This record gives sequence, structure tokens and C-alpha cells, in this order.
Amino acid sequence: MRTGVWLVGARGSVAVTSIVGAAAVRAGLTEPIGCVTEHPVLRSDALPAFGDLVFGGHDIATISVVKKAEALAESGVVPARLVATLHSELAAVDEEIRPLPHGTAAEVAAAVTADLLHFRRRHGLARVVVVNVASTEAAAAPHPAHTSLESLRDALDTLPPSALMAYAAFEAGCAFVDFTPSTGARLPALHELATASRVPYAGHDGKTGETLIKSVLAPMFAMRNLRVRSWSGTNLLGGGDGATLAEPAANAAKSASKQRVLSETLGYQPDGHTRIEYVPDIGDFKTAWDLITFAGFLGTPMRMEFTWHGCDSALAAPLVLDLARLTAAAHGAGRVGPLTELAFFFKDPLGEVDHALGAQFEALATFVRSL
Amino acid sequence: MRTGVWLVGARGSVAVTSIVGAAAVRAGLTEPIGCVTEHPVLRSDALPAFGDLVFGGHDIATISVVKKAEALAESGVVPARLVATLHSELAAVDEEIRPLPHGTAAEVAAAVTADLLHFRRRHGLARVVVVNVASTEAAAAPHPAHTSLESLRDALDTLPPSALMAYAAFEAGCAFVDFTPSTGARLPALHELATASRVPYAGHDGKTGETLIKSVLAPMFAMRNLRVRSWSGTNLLGGGDGATLAEPAANAAKSASKQRVLSETLGYQPDGHTRIEYVPDIGDFKTAWDLITFAGFLGTPMRMEFTWHGCDSALAAPLVLDLARLTAAAHGAGRVGPLTELAFFFKDPLGEVDHALGAQFEALATFVRSL
Amino acid sequence: MRTGVWLVGARGSVAVTSIVGAAAVRAGLTEPIGCVTEHPVLRSDALPAFGDLVFGGHDIATISVVKKAEALAESGVVPARLVATLHSELAAVDEEIRPLPHGTAAEVAAAVTADLLHFRRRHGLARVVVVNVASTEAAAAPHPAHTSLESLRDALDTLPPSALMAYAAFEAGCAFVDFTPSTGARLPALHELATASRVPYAGHDGKTGETLIKSVLAPMFAMRNLRVRSWSGTNLLGGGDGATLAEPAANAAKSASKQRVLSETLGYQPDGHTRIEYVPDIGDFKTAWDLITFAGFLGTPMRMEFTWHGCDSALAAPLVLDLARLTAAAHGAGRVGPLTELAFFFKDPLGEVDHALGAQFEALATFVRSL
Amino acid sequence: MRTGVWLVGARGSVAVTSIVGAAAVRAGLTEPIGCVTEHPVLRSDALPAFGDLVFGGHDIATISVVKKAEALAESGVVPARLVATLHSELAAVDEEIRPLPHGTAAEVAAAVTADLLHFRRRHGLARVVVVNVASTEAAAAPHPAHTSLESLRDALDTLPPSALMAYAAFEAGCAFVDFTPSTGARLPALHELATASRVPYAGHDGKTGETLIKSVLAPMFAMRNLRVRSWSGTNLLGGGDGATLAEPAANAAKSASKQRVLSETLGYQPDGHTRIEYVPDIGDFKTAWDLITFAGFLGTPMRMEFTWHGCDSALAAPLVLDLARLTAAAHGAGRVGPLTELAFFFKDPLGEVDHALGAQFEALATFVRSL
Ligand SMILES: NC(=O)c1ccc[n+]([C@@H]2O[C@H](COP(=O)([O-])OP(=O)(O)OC[C@H]3O[C@@H](n4cnc5c(N)ncnc54)[C@H](O)[C@@H]3O)[C@@H](O)[C@H]2O)c1
Ligand SMILES: NC(=O)c1ccc[n+]([C@@H]2O[C@H](COP(=O)([O-])OP(=O)(O)OC[C@H]3O[C@@H](n4cnc5c(N)ncnc54)[C@H](O)[C@@H]3O)[C@@H](O)[C@H]2O)c1
Ligand SMILES: NC(=O)c1ccc[n+]([C@@H]2O[C@H](COP(=O)([O-])OP(=O)(O)OC[C@H]3O[C@@H](n4cnc5c(N)ncnc54)[C@H](O)[C@@H]3O)[C@@H](O)[C@H]2O)c1
Ligand SMILES: NC(=O)c1ccc[n+]([C@@H]2O[C@H](COP(=O)([O-])OP(=O)(O)OC[C@H]3O[C@@H](n4cnc5c(N)ncnc54)[C@H](O)[C@@H]3O)[C@@H](O)[C@H]2O)c1
Ligand code: NA
Ligand code: NA
Repeated sequence: MRTGVWLVGARGSVAVTSIVGAAAVRAGLTEPIGCVTEHPVLRSDALPAFGDLVFGGHDIATISVVKKAEALAESGVVPARLVATLHSELAAVDEEIRPLPHGTAAEVAAAVTADLLHFRRRHGLARVVVVNVASTEAAAAPHPAHTSLESLRDALDTLPPSALMAYAAFEAGCAFVDFTPSTGARLPALHELATASRVPYAGHDGKTGETLIKSVLAPMFAMRNLRVRSWSGTNLLGGGDGATLAEPAANAAKSASKQRVLSETLGYQPDGHTRIEYVPDIGDFKTAWDLITFAGFLGTPMRMEFTWHGCDSALAAPLVLDLARLTAAAHGAGRVGPLTELAFFFKDPLGEVDHALGAQFEALATFVRSL
Repeated sequence: MRTGVWLVGARGSVAVTSIVGAAAVRAGLTEPIGCVTEHPVLRSDALPAFGDLVFGGHDIATISVVKKAEALAESGVVPARLVATLHSELAAVDEEIRPLPHGTAAEVAAAVTADLLHFRRRHGLARVVVVNVASTEAAAAPHPAHTSLESLRDALDTLPPSALMAYAAFEAGCAFVDFTPSTGARLPALHELATASRVPYAGHDGKTGETLIKSVLAPMFAMRNLRVRSWSGTNLLGGGDGATLAEPAANAAKSASKQRVLSETLGYQPDGHTRIEYVPDIGDFKTAWDLITFAGFLGTPMRMEFTWHGCDSALAAPLVLDLARLTAAAHGAGRVGPLTELAFFFKDPLGEVDHALGAQFEALATFVRSL
Repeated sequence: MRTGVWLVGARGSVAVTSIVGAAAVRAGLTEPIGCVTEHPVLRSDALPAFGDLVFGGHDIATISVVKKAEALAESGVVPARLVATLHSELAAVDEEIRPLPHGTAAEVAAAVTADLLHFRRRHGLARVVVVNVASTEAAAAPHPAHTSLESLRDALDTLPPSALMAYAAFEAGCAFVDFTPSTGARLPALHELATASRVPYAGHDGKTGETLIKSVLAPMFAMRNLRVRSWSGTNLLGGGDGATLAEPAANAAKSASKQRVLSETLGYQPDGHTRIEYVPDIGDFKTAWDLITFAGFLGTPMRMEFTWHGCDSALAAPLVLDLARLTAAAHGAGRVGPLTELAFFFKDPLGEVDHALGAQFEALATFVRSL
Repeated sequence: MRTGVWLVGARGSVAVTSIVGAAAVRAGLTEPIGCVTEHPVLRSDALPAFGDLVFGGHDIATISVVKKAEALAESGVVPARLVATLHSELAAVDEEIRPLPHGTAAEVAAAVTADLLHFRRRHGLARVVVVNVASTEAAAAPHPAHTSLESLRDALDTLPPSALMAYAAFEAGCAFVDFTPSTGARLPALHELATASRVPYAGHDGKTGETLIKSVLAPMFAMRNLRVRSWSGTNLLGGGDGATLAEPAANAAKSASKQRVLSETLGYQPDGHTRIEYVPDIGDFKTAWDLITFAGFLGTPMRMEFTWHGCDSALAAPLVLDLARLTAAAHGAGRVGPLTELAFFFKDPLGEVDHALGAQFEALATFVRSL
């Protein structure tokens, strides 16, 4: 059951860490730490094996996968000796990455669809999952043409790039995962197309750091019936993603996505905001600091703070592999439309779902057993 | 359904905060923040109302409940104006607190049993729950006489004080809750007695601070399949409990109780220890700092730290009320022996139970529905 | 040597905490903790005693000093029992606080000058120090009329309020202290006036929290020849001042003032910014979190973070008293113009001065001995 | 002016980092970040150049300098490419490191003295500074024979190893620096010998992490006349030094040394302790967490906490080079006995000196100008 993983943004940090990691696990050079699909409760024969994953993708950057992997090793994201050992595997993936096509929106979409079909045929793949790990876009303005597939066909140029990619993926009969907060498949017209093409989709925005912690701490306060008064977060990050997020528009998209878990879990919105700040020297190891003030019995004021110092790409990459495996299996099992059971992976999940991590894990386990 | 709550250590911080809080909730002066039994999912008519709780207890200290409440107000644990308003209610509870009886172990047990029976009769109570909130004892040495009720009868003087209290409670047909890490009912002979007396019991060691956080963070690392490398904790605390825990023997009992959640939830024991240090100036607002180091994908080292600044008595008191209500209802419903479904409340719960807080909450909800 | 302290913003938190504190020290009810002029090295007979200080001021708010003091007690800034005991002293100060006069800039200035002269005469004061503790203004636009006293006389309406106050103070022969980041006396025309009136002035922006720490940590990195790579700060605060600083313009003035110490002490500007965020629930106890990344020997990356949880008004008030005493003594000793030796107290000090706290303390000690 | 640096513990982390660093600076491959003697204010022609330093030493371990340097590179203490480039320089130093001699105390001392004399002669060195960077010893019991040189001569076997090394160094006419908390030269009999041999000595215990911060923060609280109520510290560390310090006796020596700065700077001893805990996974990057509670104006309680995440060996190594250069220059300038002006470098400095870092820097600058 050879399965394609087509990465939009294939030369970025998350993409290349995923590629290195899959190759290392396949070669038996590392354990799949951080891969949720290797948790004893979730392991399943229904999922394609790591060794069955074949990588390709699009990017607007031209840095080679090997060079990018070396840069990641230099900054401590991946071990240097893995990169050296896997040199030829990485170079082979590089061959499968294509520049983003040029032209009108319709031309780009057609070219991307063609790329996907060739990739599937060339490698004899059972199916291909397209995963968006490109730079976060500015939040897109709503447009009337996005409400139905019919109206969309003549208005493809109103789509933001991530949505155009989802469009092309669905046209090619591929499932789509949005690991970013960008629009992606989140439009009625695209839902219609996914349904017509009989493919599933998942998203949005991988849950790797501060929001992950929120998704267990906020339920704790709720279960204990404590009143959260304020929750303020500061995220300092460098790296390519950091530079993008320093753009106010992208920052707004991301910050909103990071706040949802609180109101959803607590049932009210405490004071405070989440902020993202670009600090080049921090590099790929993001530092998040959160202060939570809360009231206990008789209103007694208390507080908690935490500092999270995580390597974003190393936290994201195993989830990209998990999502590719799970979405491919769901596609194989005939699942169509939004995979709300994958909420465990996302800051801003599709559907009306529980935002508590424990409940999401249960939902995921049930889902895996159903495949 | 008037229900007695008999507090061992009734003049201590946790006890008096519970007494003030119950009176304040009953008088409609405060919301029951921090009371888990008021969580929408757990609210139940099977539980005695706050207004139905009648307090009494034993203590070796002589400070009046009012004076203690004023001292707690001075240090910010309870609002000063509540204490002033509730002056007569608090003075009334003071009348119900008796000094610890003197004499041989058998004489003490008999006198405590008599106190409990008088209390029940005097107030026309449906039943009485004895809750141990006395100072933590040194870990007790095992003794062969503790293995059966028959052998225990002639060896009551081998029991540590908390176990003698449980013995007396069971003799009086009362349920018993151990909110401390002390021995309490945790002996085969006492289990036999509880069974014979048809009463339930619960314990051990209220989960209020650092361990509460551990019980949601450790499962998060487990669910994400991340490898925790070390988990080191420092607890700085003043107050009466702090002074007791500075004793090496009590400290050892408490620290062991605080570590169990890690190995139970992760499936292995990471490096690092938990330490308790007495710092008088910290007073009742404990500060805990934990450092967690963990490995992500490809072994990349990461870390998280948190600081918890909570008022221990204000966190414990609503749980004492919850436990009294739940245990009384269980007793009323005919439950006998260990209430393992109350693991949600304890650092070191009875039975082979899940240590993840989310799972414990589910178990608790099922339990409440069964009453 | 009875000395007047005229507070602009006299009904605010800093002002009222200063008033309560001075009364408490005078009455022997508290020690002068936090008063730098009571440090053994700085104590001097040249300074007016606490008992010699007479308070008055202007404000646009109408809340009474007693009510404000009670509100401060409620939120833990000052002890409630002090406020109760000092009721009549506080009520007496209330009589000395006047609303801000209305009219053209020239009329306001004249009325303020008249208020100051009456105050001095009424109480038989040797001299009066005007201290600006009003809300922070937006950074003012430069104006050509501000460059000389002559041109300013016809353009008083171009002055921001804080500068108009400094103008009126100098006209009345009073020294002026700017405890805020506002413009105050910091204009060539006002310097000319201060010189002509033979009065000293001091500023800007009391150094109470995060910047205080920076002023000892940054020199440490410099003395150890370590390379600071980034320094990012987050300040969460509620209270009146917090609401004002949430205004982007005031925020900008304050943040710039907070950054100066780094470049001045290190000799270069590291990555990172300082941010102020208004979080109502935080109240008067500001929480600042700073992350510092630095390179050690052979470039090895290291980091430090700190959390400061201080009560701003309680940190500021003793400095207001110190500044009043020191400035009055300097005035008495014939000092005219900027008091650069008071840099110890300010985030954004006047003149080309050392920004390391230790050096500033030495300069202050020399200054006190010279009086 | 070629100068010998004889390292006791020459195969340890601090020693080998110093050796790598000196070679790298000499080769122009790195800047001397962290070297205090390269601070513009302290740079002096009186000091031997980095290029003039010749390394040798004793150790009981047998790991080669190259292997140790590679291990340090693996754990991120030094850059791997530096170690590769400097391979032959490191191998050359390895030749100069001798095993610790065996025999009676007198025989060991004589053999060490002989090693030092040969080293000086072999390399034509102007002078040799012996620096103790061996594992920390247990605190040594006082012995009457240590009070005079005469009585010591017949009781050399009562000396702990560090003191025997100082003895041998002085006999060889070498200056001695104790970078550890061990006894070293700190005995009246050894002071007598240093004086007779006309050599200077310095110590104790390099100030690299938590204590460094204390030495600037404690003076800040003192200068601001704030009352520190408690200061509690936790140091988590792995590495060779961590394993040694896990021994209770060594731990006690070190912890006492870390506390002195508080009482010396504040004039009183606040509540709280400093603790060292061995956590293997932490490795060479120590994490220290300190909580400081303090009272402000009117007794208002406040708090500060900091986390320091530093690489101990990378912080220590440049100071070892500084101390070697400074002590050699002092020796050359005819200085004899304790170099109290080097207090800047030590947790537990010799003599009655100021413990505030700023004052120590001034004393150091005056000292350097005097050479
Ligand atoms: N790392 C995490 O923990 C995490 C978590 C959640 C979401 N994400 C999201 O994942 C995405 C990737 O993060 P990253 O750190 O790898 O960023 P990155 O900047 O390293 O990589 C992004 C890549 O996308 C490419 N790209 C940009 N626009 C493109 C387009 N229109 N078409 C194709 N490629 C394009 C860029 O050239 C670059 O190679 C971001 O959107 C980020 O917000 C990351
Ligand atoms: N506060 C929390 O968050 C929390 C959490 C878990 C467990 N606990 C446990 O709860 C207990 C009470 O804590 P606290 O803060 O109220 O302590 P405390 O010291 O304020 O009160 C203990 C009381 O017990 C009394 N006492 C001591 N020995 C007794 C005996 N043999 N019989 C009867 N009374 C006796 C003391 O006189 C005192 O009044 C402690 O064992 C503590 O470890 C507290
Ligand atoms: N608290 C600290 O640690 C600290 C440190 C440095 C600077 N400051 C500055 O001190 C000032 C006072 O802080 P606060 O916390 O007391 O604020 P606050 O809001 O409690 O008080 C400000 C007072 O100024 C009054 N006011 C506003 N405009 C005025 C005007 N034009 N004329 C006269 N009065 C006016 C307000 O009515 C209010 O009573 C702020 O500018 C703040 O930035 C405070
Ligand atoms: N790294 C720092 O920041 C720092 C700061 C202050 C003090 N120190 C002190 O510096 C010393 C060295 O620290 P490290 O991290 O390099 O430790 P380490 O364990 O890596 O090295 C110590 C070396 O000393 C050797 N040794 C042990 N006993 C000896 C003896 N009797 N004679 C000769 N050699 C002996 C060991 O074999 C080892 O090679 C320790 O005492 C430590 O407390 C270090
Ligand atoms: Na912290
Ligand atoms: Na922290």
C-alpha cells in the first residue's frame, strides 16, 4: 500500500524534518518518538507503514532538501549524523519537488493536478495525501463565489493559494490536510468538491506548543471548577515561520487560532491575549511563556505560569507523518469530507468538537479502530 | 438528609477553611468555586446539600475556630469580611470540636467512637463522615497484627493515630476519608472492619497543587508519545503543614506520594525527584517549581518548566466538602469498602486506577450517576 | 524646614500610596522600607524629615484620598488597618488637593502658579517640590516654539499638560520632578526658565520593576564580557496606569523608555522588544517576564529568564518621597537645572549618565554628601 | 613572557574547555567572549597573552584531552569543528598531563613539586600558576598541625589533596588558584609557606551561575532598601561535577559557599536554602531556579523568580584563563599572599571584601592598573 505524501512548502523546516525523520525511521536509525500513531493504543495495521511513504511536493524556494537538512542540523533540530547517513535518500526526494507552477489561477490549479497525477502514476501509489506546510497566509477575505462549487469554477482567482492547492488536490482525487492556519479546504465550495471527489480532508493548524499545553491545563481548571481570570501568552520565535508570523496579518490569523481552546474548554473567555513575536536569535526553538491567574474557593487569587521551550519543527514533523498515515487510511476506508476525529492534532479543529486533549485522544482511538 | 462531617484536625487550616466555606455557601455569600460536585456534569440530587452539612471534630490544638479563621483572613486565605459576617456560625461549630481523648489506645478509640455516636444522635444526623485533615504522620512501620481484624483487636496500640481514628470511625458505623498521606484505613485489618460495618472509605492525600498539574501534563506527554527524560520538583511552603513536612519522616511520606503519578502515567520513571522545603515567609501560598526535560522526534532535547503559586488550604477545602458529600451519598447508597472511583481527588489513590485526570473525571461522573 | 510636596495626579495610586506611607512613617506605624534615603549610606540631616513634608496637589479625578486609600487596601497595596488609623490625616490632605484649573493654557498656568504660592504661604513652607505622578501622556510632537523661553511665552498652548505644569512650577519658584515618561521639564525653553528661576528639576520615569532588574543584570553581562543576543520583555498590568498604557501612544513612550538601559549599558542593542499589555485581572501587582539569550565562551548559547511580581505603587511611593526630600534639599543648597545625580531613580534619566545601578548609587551617595 | 598553567584535574570538563578555548583564541578561530581580562576596562599589557600560555597538569583520570574535547562537543559545550581543527594542539597538551603520583603524602608532594619544576624548565617558562579544577572534596576537618608551617612539615598526611597540591606548588615557587570550594591554600600553615616562597594565591570557588546573579540582585535589594524575606535556590545539574556534588559532604561544602553572598550583602540572612541536585539528563547545562520573596513599602509582599540555564564549563573556562593571566602578572609584579582583589571571580572570596559584583569589578580594575 505505497502512499504518496505531497508537501506544499516541501523545502521548509517542517517538511524537511518530516522527510528526514521518515527516512531515519524507515532505515531503523531512530525510534518514532513523537509519532502518535506509534502509541500502543493507536498502532494499527490499517495505516500505511513508514516504509510505504513516498514524498514529493511543491515549493517556491529553491534550496535543496540536503542543504536545508544540513541547516536544520546546524541549529540542533535534527542530528547531523543522520543527515550525513541519509544523504542519498534526501537527494532522491529532492527530485520529486517541483516549483510552484505559474499562470492564471486556473492554469496553476490544472498544473498542480497534473503534477499530482503524474506523481501517483510514476510511483504506482495507492493514493496521495496533500499536506499544506507552506508559510502561513494572511487571513483571506470572504467572497460570495466561495459558497458553491458552481460559482467557484469561474472565480478561481479569488482563492488564496492554500485554497487553490486544496482545489487542485480534490480535482486529482487526493485527500488534503491543512497543517497551517491558512484557509485551505475550509470553504463551502471546496467541501462540495471534496464530497464529489469522494475524498476526506483535515485541519487546521498543527497543535505543537503553547496550545497543546492549554488543551490539557484549561480542562484541568474546568474539571476542578476553578475560575480562570486571565490567560496571557507570549511566543518568541525565530526561524522562517517566525519571520512570516511577524507580518501583522499572518500573526492575527495564528493568534486567533491559538485562543479558541480557552473559550471552548472553559465556557467563557478569560482576560488576556496571545502574542507572537519574532526574535531572530531564538531560532527554531520557540519559547512560550504563559501566565494564568485564577480564583479558588472563596475567590482566593492564585496563579500559575509556564515556560515551554520546544523545537517547533521537531514537534510538528511526527504529526505530519501521523496525519498522512491516518488520512490515507481514512481515504482507503471510504471516508469523505471533514475528518473531525483528527481534532487531537489541531489548534483550530474542524467541526463542533471537544477541545480537551484527553477527549480528543479517545475520539482518535475510536477512529483508528474503525478503519 | 442532615449529614455530619467530623474533622480530625478540626482546628487546622484546611478544616477551618472548609468550615468557613460551607457556612458562606450556605448563607449565599459566595459561589462554590472549586467545588467539583458543583460542576454541571457532576451535580446530583443524591448528594447532601451544603446546607445539610453539620460540622464537628477532634483536635489537639486549642485555638478557637473564630481565631483561626481570623488568622487565615490575615494571611489572605479567606476574605476578612466573610469571617466577620459568619462569626456566630463559626462559634457554634467551635462547640462541636472536642479535644483528643487521653488514655490507652483502646480507651482513645472507645472515647472517639462515643463522641461520634453522641454527635450523630445530638444532631439527628442520617450519617457521619469522618475526614482526616490532621497533621501528616511519619510513615508507619508495618506490623503483623495489622493483617487481620482479629489480631488487631489486641494490638490497637501498634496503630498510628490516623489508623486508630479510622478504627474508631468504623466502629461507630461512620465512613472515613483520608485527606492526608497518613496510614488511615489503609490496613487489611481495617478493611475487614469497614466491610463488617458496611461502610465505605476513601483516600489518600488530597491532590491540590504540583501533583494535580502532573496528572494532566504527564498524560499529555504520554499521548503525544514524547519521551520524558527528567522531572524535578521543588515545593516551597510555610504554614503549619509546612513545618510538619520539614520533619524528614513526614517529608518522605509526602514526596513518595507525589511521585507515583509519573511512573503510573508514563509507564517508566524519569530522572529527578520531588522535594518539599519549609520556608516560613512563604506562608500558606505554596510555590512549586517543576522542570521537565523531554526528547522529541529524532531525540531533539526540549524542556518545560512551570511555577504554581496556589493557596493550599483554599484548594483543599472545597475538595473536603466534595469528599464529604460524595462519601455520605455512597454510604447512603450502600457502598462498602474502598471508593476507588474517587481517585480524581487524591495523589495516592486506592486501588489499581488510572492516574490521568481526564480518565479520573470520567470515572467520577459514572460514579455520581450510579448513586 | 517644613517642605511642600505638590502632587500632579494627587488622587492616583502612586500619589495616595505616598501620602499614606508618609503619614504612617511619621506616626511611627511602619518602617521606611523601600525609602532609599533611609539607607545607612544615604541618610543625611540635609534632607527634610518625613514629619516635615506637607502634601497638596492637583487632579482631574474627584475620588477622595480616603476612598482611594481604601480601594488600595482592598487590592492589597497598603494595609487596611493603616488606612483606618490614619483616617483624619488622609482627610486633611484631601482638603489640599484642587481640581485642575480650566481656561487657556496661559490661564491654567497662572492658576496653577497661584495655587502653589498660596499653598506655600498657607503652610509657611520653606519650599515646594512639584512631582508629576499623573497619567502618562502620549509622546508629544516637537514644536519650534519649545526651543527658547522667549518663543514659548506666546505659544503656551503648544505644551503638553506635563510641560505646562513644569512651566507653572518654575514660575512659582518650585522645583519639579517628573516621575512619568511624559515631557515635563524636558524642553530647552523650560530649562531656560528653571535656570532663570534658580530651581532644580529631575526625571524621567520612576524605575521600579523590569527596568530596575535590567539595570543590574545588563551590567553583569557586560562586566563578564558575555554577549547578550536577545532580551525580550512582557509586562502584564492592570490598574489605572495599565489602562492608560494600553493606549498605543502612551505605550510607545513607556516602552522606549524601558529599552534605553540595554544599549547604554551593553554598548549595543540586542534583538527583542519590551511590551506592555493591559490585563485587568492582574490589578496593581504587575507581572513582568523577561527572556535573555546570550552567548558564552566559544559561542555556547545560554539563557536566563525572570519573572517579577511587584506592586507598582508600593515600589514607586517610597521613591516619590525620596525624590521630594532630595530635590528639596538640592533646591535649598542652591542647585539649579537638571539633577543628573538622581539617575538612580529613573528609567530614562537626564544627561549623559551611567545606566548601571551600582554606579548610579555611588553618584547618589556623592550627591547626598555634597548637600 | 611564556607562562605555565598547571591544571589539577586537567582531564575534567572545566580544564579541557579552558585548553580548547585558549588554543582557539590563540589561533584566531574565536573571540574571547566571557574573558573578563578582555573587557576594555581591564585589558592590560602587564598580563601574559593567550599565546603565551603553556598548559600541563595532573589528573587521576586517563581519558585523553582529545577524547574529552570530543565528548564536550557532543554535549554542546564546545563547537565540534573547533575540536577537529585543533586536534594536534590538543594532543600536544595531552603529553604534558601526568598521573597523580603515588606514595606517602610527603612523597606525593615532592613528586608534584618535581613535576612543576621540570615543566617550567622544559618550556623555559617565566613562571607557572597552578589552578585547582579537580573534583570538589568533602569539607576537611580542622587539625592543629595546620596552624603553623613548622607543625605541618611532620603532618603532611593530615592535608586534604587540594591542600597538598597547594603545598607542593608553593614549594616549587608557583602561585596557586583554587577554583573549587576545596581547602586548597586556605590554612595558616600554607599562608606562611606562600609568604616564605614569595608567591601569591587566590580562591575560592569560581562564581559562574546562581551565585553570580545573587551578587548583583542582592545588592539591588540592598540599595533600594527593600527587605528580602526569603531566598530559596534549586540547582539541577548532571555531568561529572554533578555526580560528585550529589555526595552529601561535597554538596554541603558547595551549598555553604553559595549562601555567603546574601548575608554579606544584605546584612542579614533571609529564610531559605540553596540546594544542589544531580539529574543526569540535565548534563552540562545546569538549570538553577531561585525564588525571592521580599517586602516593599508598608510591608507589601512581592516576589521575583529567575531561571538560569547556563553551561557551567563554558562559563568557568574563560575565568580560569583570566585567573591564570592575572595571578601570573601579580606574581611577576611581586605580589605575595592572598589576592583579595580577585573576589570578582569567586563565590567564597578570600579576605574581608565587598560581595557586590559592581564593587568587585572596581577593585579588579584598580588591581589591574597597579600591575
Ligand atoms: N512548526 C510548528 O510547530 C507548526 C505548528 C503549526 C503550524 N505550523 C505551520 O506550518 C507551516 C510551515 O512552517 P515552517 O516552520 O516549516 O515554515 P518555513 O518558513 O520553514 O517553510 C515554509 C515553506 O513554504 C514555502 N512556501 C511559501 N509559500 C508557498 C506557496 N505559496 N507554495 C508552496 N510553498 C510555499 C516556503 O518557501 C518555505 O519553504 C507554517 O505555516 C506554520 O505556521 C507549524
Ligand atoms: N492543604 C492541602 O492542599 C493539602 C493537600 C493534601 C493533603 N493535605 C494534608 O491535610 C492535612 C492538614 O493540613 P493543614 O494545612 O490544615 O495543616 P495544619 O497544620 O494547619 O492543621 C493540622 C491540624 O491537625 C491537628 N492535629 C495534629 N495531630 C492531631 C491528632 N493526632 N489528632 C487530631 N488533630 C491533630 C493540629 O493541631 C492542627 O490543628 C495535612 O496532613 C496535609 O498534609 C493538605
Ligand atoms: N507605579 C510605578 O511603578 C510607576 C513607575 C514609573 C512611572 N509611573 C508613572 O506614574 C504615573 C502615575 O501612576 P499611577 O499608577 O498612580 O496611575 P493612576 O492612573 O492611578 O493615577 C494617575 C492620576 O493622574 C490623574 N491625572 C490624569 N491626568 C491628569 C492631569 N492632566 N492633571 C492632573 N492629574 C491628572 C488621574 O486622574 C489619576 O488620579 C503614571 O504616569 C505612571 O506611568 C509609575
Ligand atoms: N564549572 C563551573 O561552573 C564551576 C564553578 C565553580 C567551581 N567549579 C569546580 O571546578 C571543579 C571541576 O569541575 P568540572 O565540571 O570540570 O568537574 P569534572 O568532574 O569534569 O572534572 C574534575 C576532574 O578532576 C579529576 N580529579 C579528581 N580528583 C583528583 C585529584 N585528587 N587530583 C587530580 N585530579 C583529580 C577528575 O578525574 C576529573 O578529571 C569542581 O570542583 C567544581 O566544583 C566549577
Ligand atoms: Na517562571
Ligand atoms: Na520560569
